[in-house]
Amino acid sequence: MRRKVIRTHDKKIGASPGTLVHVGERKVETVKISVFEYNAEHLTEKIPRRIEECAVRVKEPRVFWVDIAGIHQVDILEKCGAIFGLHPLVLEDILNTGHRPKFEEHDDFLFLVLKMLSLPEQGTEIRGEQISLIVGPDYLLTFQEREEDLFDGVRERLRGNRGKIRKHGADYLAYALIDAVVDGHFVILEKIGDEIERLEDELLAAPSPETLQQIHNLKREMILLRKSVWPLRELIGDLQRCESPLIAADTGIFLRDVYDHTIQIIDTVETFRDMLAGMLDLYLSSVSNHMNEIMKVLTVIATIFIPLTFLAGVYGMNFDYLPELRWRWGYAAFWGLSIVCALGMVRFFQRKKWL
Amino acid sequence: MRRKVIRTHDKKIGASPGTLVHVGERKVETVKISVFEYNAEHLTEKIPRRIEECAVRVKEPRVFWVDIAGIHQVDILEKCGAIFGLHPLVLEDILNTGHRPKFEEHDDFLFLVLKMLSLPEQGTEIRGEQISLIVGPDYLLTFQEREEDLFDGVRERLRGNRGKIRKHGADYLAYALIDAVVDGHFVILEKIGDEIERLEDELLAAPSPETLQQIHNLKREMILLRKSVWPLRELIGDLQRCESPLIAADTGIFLRDVYDHTIQIIDTVETFRDMLAGMLDLYLSSVSNHMNEIMKVLTVIATIFIPLTFLAGVYGMNFDYLPELRWRWGYAAFWGLSIVCALGMVRFFQRKKWL
Amino acid sequence: MRRKVIRTHDKKIGASPGTLVHVGERKVETVKISVFEYNAEHLTEKIPRRIEECAVRVKEPRVFWVDIAGIHQVDILEKCGAIFGLHPLVLEDILNTGHRPKFEEHDDFLFLVLKMLSLPEQGTEIRGEQISLIVGPDYLLTFQEREEDLFDGVRERLRGNRGKIRKHGADYLAYALIDAVVDGHFVILEKIGDEIERLEDELLAAPSPETLQQIHNLKREMILLRKSVWPLRELIGDLQRCESPLIAADTGIFLRDVYDHTIQIIDTVETFRDMLAGMLDLYLSSVSNHMNEIMKVLTVIATIFIPLTFLAGVYGMNFDYLPELRWRWGYAAFWGLSIVCALGMVRFFQRKKWL
Amino acid sequence: MRRKVIRTHDKKIGASPGTLVHVGERKVETVKISVFEYNAEHLTEKIPRRIEECAVRVKEPRVFWVDIAGIHQVDILEKCGAIFGLHPLVLEDILNTGHRPKFEEHDDFLFLVLKMLSLPEQGTEIRGEQISLIVGPDYLLTFQEREEDLFDGVRERLRGNRGKIRKHGADYLAYALIDAVVDGHFVILEKIGDEIERLEDELLAAPSPETLQQIHNLKREMILLRKSVWPLRELIGDLQRCESPLIAADTGIFLRDVYDHTIQIIDTVETFRDMLAGMLDLYLSSVSNHMNEIMKVLTVIATIFIPLTFLAGVYGMNFDYLPELRWRWGYAAFWGLSIVCALGMVRFFQRKKWL
Amino acid sequence: MRRKVIRTHDKKIGASPGTLVHVGERKVETVKISVFEYNAEHLTEKIPRRIEECAVRVKEPRVFWVDIAGIHQVDILEKCGAIFGLHPLVLEDILNTGHRPKFEEHDDFLFLVLKMLSLPEQGTEIRGEQISLIVGPDYLLTFQEREEDLFDGVRERLRGNRGKIRKHGADYLAYALIDAVVDGHFVILEKIGDEIERLEDELLAAPSPETLQQIHNLKREMILLRKSVWPLRELIGDLQRCESPLIAADTGIFLRDVYDHTIQIIDTVETFRDMLAGMLDLYLSSVSNHMNEIMKVLTVIATIFIPLTFLAGVYGMNFDYLPELRWRWGYAAFWGLSIVCALGMVRFFQRKKWL
Repeated sequence: MRRKVIRTHDKKIGASPGTLVHVGERKVETVKISVFEYNAEHLTEKIPRRIEECAVRVKEPRVFWVDIAGIHQVDILEKCGAIFGLHPLVLEDILNTGHRPKFEEHDDFLFLVLKMLSLPEQGTEIRGEQISLIVGPDYLLTFQEREEDLFDGVRERLRGNRGKIRKHGADYLAYALIDAVVDGHFVILEKIGDEIERLEDELLAAPSPETLQQIHNLKREMILLRKSVWPLRELIGDLQRCESPLIAADTGIFLRDVYDHTIQIIDTVETFRDMLAGMLDLYLSSVSNHMNEIMKVLTVIATIFIPLTFLAGVYGMNFDYLPELRWRWGYAAFWGLSIVCALGMVRFFQRKKWL
Repeated sequence: MRRKVIRTHDKKIGASPGTLVHVGERKVETVKISVFEYNAEHLTEKIPRRIEECAVRVKEPRVFWVDIAGIHQVDILEKCGAIFGLHPLVLEDILNTGHRPKFEEHDDFLFLVLKMLSLPEQGTEIRGEQISLIVGPDYLLTFQEREEDLFDGVRERLRGNRGKIRKHGADYLAYALIDAVVDGHFVILEKIGDEIERLEDELLAAPSPETLQQIHNLKREMILLRKSVWPLRELIGDLQRCESPLIAADTGIFLRDVYDHTIQIIDTVETFRDMLAGMLDLYLSSVSNHMNEIMKVLTVIATIFIPLTFLAGVYGMNFDYLPELRWRWGYAAFWGLSIVCALGMVRFFQRKKWL
Repeated sequence: MRRKVIRTHDKKIGASPGTLVHVGERKVETVKISVFEYNAEHLTEKIPRRIEECAVRVKEPRVFWVDIAGIHQVDILEKCGAIFGLHPLVLEDILNTGHRPKFEEHDDFLFLVLKMLSLPEQGTEIRGEQISLIVGPDYLLTFQEREEDLFDGVRERLRGNRGKIRKHGADYLAYALIDAVVDGHFVILEKIGDEIERLEDELLAAPSPETLQQIHNLKREMILLRKSVWPLRELIGDLQRCESPLIAADTGIFLRDVYDHTIQIIDTVETFRDMLAGMLDLYLSSVSNHMNEIMKVLTVIATIFIPLTFLAGVYGMNFDYLPELRWRWGYAAFWGLSIVCALGMVRFFQRKKWL
Repeated sequence: MRRKVIRTHDKKIGASPGTLVHVGERKVETVKISVFEYNAEHLTEKIPRRIEECAVRVKEPRVFWVDIAGIHQVDILEKCGAIFGLHPLVLEDILNTGHRPKFEEHDDFLFLVLKMLSLPEQGTEIRGEQISLIVGPDYLLTFQEREEDLFDGVRERLRGNRGKIRKHGADYLAYALIDAVVDGHFVILEKIGDEIERLEDELLAAPSPETLQQIHNLKREMILLRKSVWPLRELIGDLQRCESPLIAADTGIFLRDVYDHTIQIIDTVETFRDMLAGMLDLYLSSVSNHMNEIMKVLTVIATIFIPLTFLAGVYGMNFDYLPELRWRWGYAAFWGLSIVCALGMVRFFQRKKWL
Repeated sequence: MRRKVIRTHDKKIGASPGTLVHVGERKVETVKISVFEYNAEHLTEKIPRRIEECAVRVKEPRVFWVDIAGIHQVDILEKCGAIFGLHPLVLEDILNTGHRPKFEEHDDFLFLVLKMLSLPEQGTEIRGEQISLIVGPDYLLTFQEREEDLFDGVRERLRGNRGKIRKHGADYLAYALIDAVVDGHFVILEKIGDEIERLEDELLAAPSPETLQQIHNLKREMILLRKSVWPLRELIGDLQRCESPLIAADTGIFLRDVYDHTIQIIDTVETFRDMLAGMLDLYLSSVSNHMNEIMKVLTVIATIFIPLTFLAGVYGMNFDYLPELRWRWGYAAFWGLSIVCALGMVRFFQRKKWL
């Protein structure tokens, strides 16, 4: 079944703003909560059964990362909102998985909504999962529709104390996750780039209606990808420019780097769009050329034989007085005339460069 | 009958600005006025027979909402304008239902013109009703072309004292109505999204001129929808940015939320436009492919049989001296030659990948 | 004869800037000057024979409106310039009727160039007349190519002392005239909207090359209309934003209203352009579909009968030894074979959905 | 030979910046220098043989205009640069005739590069000559590729002391030359406008592949014209906005006027582009319509006669037992059947509106 | 093998930011380091075997240029970063050869990433090498994917003490290299311009599917070129505007010059895109015209001979009673009728201007 272009809002329409209703399909059975608490020296990792356990934290300065995979249990969200003091509209946005990527600066925290894209092995249909980040002074909350492997790299770096990740605060951790999401786009773009090149070769070798269908599908994907990538750039640009005390000064250069990546993604998406448009033109031209080929064959055959058939018809007539039929060399003359006629036509077509 | 693209301005042209003339079709017979007067504790609801009754208000701090459904009785508007001190140009804009959505900041009130869209069960033709809002310090005036169900959700929340709506002022009530109007767009976009997907499937399975007509109709709707959505975004953006004392500080975050929704609507409209353009290209390509198919069949049949028919014509000639006719195996040789000839053609077409 | 897309500048090229030469066709024989002098209490209306009479004015605070219809007599312009102290470049712009709408703020006056559009009863070719306005502290000069009925509404309001027009200054009078010019666009847009709807219906019912020609003509008109409407919006926007003491504070709201109208005009023009582009696509698609229809008929008939004709040709051959001809049921067998063959073809076409 | 789209840079690539090499074709044999020295009372005109003579100037306040036609003699440029203190990069830009129009504000002078366009009598290929202006406090240097008639008007005004030109400084003289260059565009646009109208008429009357070729050529010209006009506008806009003491206050209004003209030129170029695009669509549609016409004729003739030919073939068969051949009215019945069959087809085509 | 549109990021995804991994193909075997140390009087040139030798520098004020050709040996980069104090993200960007051109202002140095383009003798496929520049107060580091001839011109100027290059600092040296890279674009654009003109001529003379393929290839190149040129302009614009003390005041005018060149490159790229789009339209039109030609020939031949063949078939029938066959002049009458019929058709086609 095809992904829906726009998600269902029915359940929400007419409800009071801030009412928490999960919008979207339920992607996992049970909500999985995982907690990392770390500083440069120590790292504690646990999987609490109830969200209330997150309220108890060590006082010592540590970064506190709560990752919630599965957002269909509204009560968990509500408790989470109560513990960390989140505005109801923020919780509503977390639940509404059809949301546009966005960035909001609140008093105590920054709120980001991202789309994590993935391309299944088979097919070219990009799937998107919504990821929401709440960046507080010393905590980071992440909400995913289902547990994604994309964050595993960051978890490994945390556990292994690799890179600078344990030395920085929650803002750097948020950056690391955003970076992982943005890098995920390159994987997809590269696959699409390969697919485009494969189609270009196919277009030159043997274009078929299936080629057209595939070009069209890719175009459709680029339209939808574009719709999600432009707000991503805007979001990261806003994040970079915002002068929130929640963002440490030395995280700025990393955000600039990730911003450069989003611009590169947009450039690539636009380039792909242009290339696909060019391929469509090429396909249409090759169909036209093909039609010309067919018409030429028909025309050459028909215009050579139609007059000859007429001539044969003439000498098949039963007139009592039809002198040529009586001639000794009549039949030979008929063939001679036919061959001259056919050669003349062939000559004519050669001069028109149809043969 | 088809909706007119641009409304009649004839009655107005040349009149002095500020002259009150109702422009548009009369949509209801009698004008219906309904009044809500409420604060967090009390709610009074009445349906006055004459607009003058609205002038008498309880002094105690309450929000006062007058909803006027039906705007063809110019005198009611005039009285209303006198009671609340509205500029004649504002009244003129309320009456002119062909107006573009807009926002104006006046000294004592804010003036908004919105379009409430609805899509009938049958067909894809979007209809729009104009809604005007006057947001004063403690009152809200709403003018509709006819009574719409869209406001019922808000009325229910007022009556049931659900959500925060009774605790806030007239600005929040205005926000709640704007939110309902904006949410109404999502319902329509979702229906159109379903229609687009249905057409995409139809396009792959069995494209027909009706498919083309439906794509064209949807494109037309998107052009008109776009014309109404862009000013909506502008309007809400202006409303959000305006630093009027009439907008309480905590309403700001709700306006930002509704602004995000309008951006999402615009994104979706633009995405649909792109998708429809792609579908049109695909339709044209499939028509071309179809034409190629037809031409191939004709060409294959004609080029195989035209030379054979000529050959049959030759041996149908009545020349006295036509030696092949006398041969014992002449007829068999004819068939042999015909079959060789036809097979050669088939081979040729197979090599050209037409068969 | 078709309107020229760009007016003749030949007479002007190479001349010193500020040289007064009338550029454009002479539209009226004699220049007609009309003068209104009014305040809230009094109104004097006269038609002076010579422009010099305008120099004598009552000292009492009055608004003084000189309307000059016909601008080919350069000397009248020059005298006018001398009386009111106009810069030679301003006079040059008034004379050059091929000018782009524009707004200039001078020290003593504001200078506006507008296009008044009209659509003849027959045809869809929009004609434009240039109107120049000089707004001084207590006077208004208007220059028209020929006397237009569009100003009559304003004259009537002046004479009848209707609306607020007599209570305001020259700036409000200028606004009233601009408003009349802008409203004139709506009349034209409505006619074009009707024409577009008529063409859309024609396109569905029975598209013909004439339909195409009419769509093309409308597109051409929209291109030219667009060229004149965008600077109009710019002009009124500049006028609204300019903080000249010549514009009274309470005229501002009226200018904002007229600015909203120009935006609505631009929206409508752009919408029409999009719709016309869509109609052209639809026309081309319907031509392609039509071609497909034609080809199908040809192909069906030809592919059914060409093999049968070959078969008939075979049994028309005169071979001495052609055993089938001797069979008792040969002829019946021929018909049987033919019918089977034809039905097979019909079946084939039905499966391909060509029948 | 066709004008090259991009000029040769080969000689320059890799050279040190500021190295003076003439890039472009040598357009005149000898360099011609002409000098005007004037104020409101006096005018001296001379043609020095050597550029060094220009270094000696009358002390009395005069405007000093040196016009150099032919720029291939690099040493003259170098001496000129030494006399007037020009930066090597400026001299390099003067020599590089493939340059984009631009404006640079230097400490002692303003530097402008313009394109003077001309359209030969025959053909539609616009040619451009580069003109560079150095505007100093009391001198003006102009460099042309060859002597152009376009400046003659200005020379005449200088000699005849017509207009204000002798009363102003070097900045006004520069303006007068820029004005002449900009006015030159209108002449070309008008010719192209006439050509477009001729082609539109041709398109309606009798479109041919030559018409297509001409539309394409005009489109190509508009692409190149556009490339030169946009920077021209930018240049004059910058010149107008720059607050250099070299531009007298009262020259500002003249620059605004010339700026308006460039906007009008751009509007016209864009309008022409839109119109040419529309004409191309119309041409393609008329080709499609024409193809439909051809196919209809073929289909009507073929579908009427192919079944009849089959019928005639049937009764030309030589079966021993073919009873119809023996009938008294067989031949008449054949004709009857044929005519009924043909009329049925004609009827069918009439109902399909092909006839 | 075709160049990949987007480079491999696989090795990098999920790694910690700042991790140094070489991304791209290894283009040279050994890394080649070359060092220039110069001021106006002296020049030392050496080729150190180890990067550590670069750490030892003469104290005397000199410009120090280290050029590293080949960047696949990550350890050299790391040592280089340690010597000059470069941020890990900068080193990462140098290694990632799929990067977008960009400019970053760091505290101690400026960082630039450029693309050096080259067009092989055969084919139209542009290749790009990434060049990174680190501009410090008195040093310049350049990193190339392989040693390019493009820098040889600058090296020669350094050695020969030609131009001003030895008198200026590292910023001027950087400018000279950027200028060389930008000039490299002109060489490519000129080749492409020649190719476009060749194709335009081919299109008029004898368009073939190969022409289409070449137009498409050029379009594809322009899409990719555009993707690299726009950020180049942005980069040089940022560099010019940045008020870093690392850029001497008198280098500004040179940067403005190079900025003008990038604008000219963009103009040319956009012009080429427009021209190629026009050529594609022309190609499609000429294919349509060609199809019309073919159809006309088929239609003329078929419609002349099909009725005549029918007539011949009629008189080939074997009806016992077929009176015309008995007539003395029957055969002559047949020919007469045939000729009249054929001439009528010819006349009809002539009137339709098909012949």
